[in-house]
Amino acid sequence: MDKPVLARLHKVMQLREEVETLASGGPFAPDADWLDSGTHLTLIADVPGCSLESLMLEDDGEAVTLSGERLALPESRGVLHRERRTGRFSRRLPFPVAVVSHSGEASLVSGVLSVRFEKVHKTIEAQEWEEPQDHLQD
Amino acid sequence: MDKPVLARLHKVMQLREEVETLASGGPFAPDADWLDSGTHLTLIADVPGCSLESLMLEDDGEAVTLSGERLALPESRGVLHRERRTGRFSRRLPFPVAVVSHSGEASLVSGVLSVRFEKVHKTIEAQEWEEPQDHLQD
Repeated sequence: MDKPVLARLHKVMQLREEVETLASGGPFAPDADWLDSGTHLTLIADVPGCSLESLMLEDDGEAVTLSGERLALPESRGVLHRERRTGRFSRRLPFPVAVVSHSGEASLVSGVLSVRFEKVHKTIEAQEWEEPQDHLQD
Repeated sequence: MDKPVLARLHKVMQLREEVETLASGGPFAPDADWLDSGTHLTLIADVPGCSLESLMLEDDGEAVTLSGERLALPESRGVLHRERRTGRFSRRLPFPVAVVSHSGEASLVSGVLSVRFEKVHKTIEAQEWEEPQDHLQD
């Protein structure tokens, strides 16, 4: 095939992929939870298929920005049905409570990213203790 | 605290979790793609946070049913913000083309499940070969 024809074909394939991405609701965006354990704040985000190398975390004091990339499948020409969104993504997640700057520690297990931050104002839950029985019977 | 009070508190917590699950759009459902490589059909599904042991695949000849469970976070009482859906799920995915019964081979990497089935009617893409230059110059 001629080079200009191949180049145009390539362009058409790219456009088709872009249209498919738009039709499926835009690029990938990770779902995220915030947990408060009293002393620490933890961000939990679903990033299936993302390598640790592709992920980046940026703490600006007010929020953490999680960015990365989900690679499109190499066999993209043989796609019969597509729901999984791919491509570059970036999501800014404001801290729900104040955290110690740059205290985040991240881990990635089974496509789930956890980032644990130290809280500025630590809260300790009061524990309720029952009086020992023998003491009550005094 | 009294036992009946604790039991009621536990019930309230459970109801709250159920309401939150419903509000967030129901239980977890994995996004899935179907790929056709010519000789094989591959199902790719996002199942972040699911262990291999919790996943089950059932091939009834017409479809494969993927079921499993995403465990709720143990620190559920400290949830400040929740988007990630958890709980039991089951999704029936009809085969887009005929596959050899029970030929599926599954693998789980970074929260992404791949199941490769052998196609009944294998297709082989025609390859275009350019004639060698010296042959044309004969």
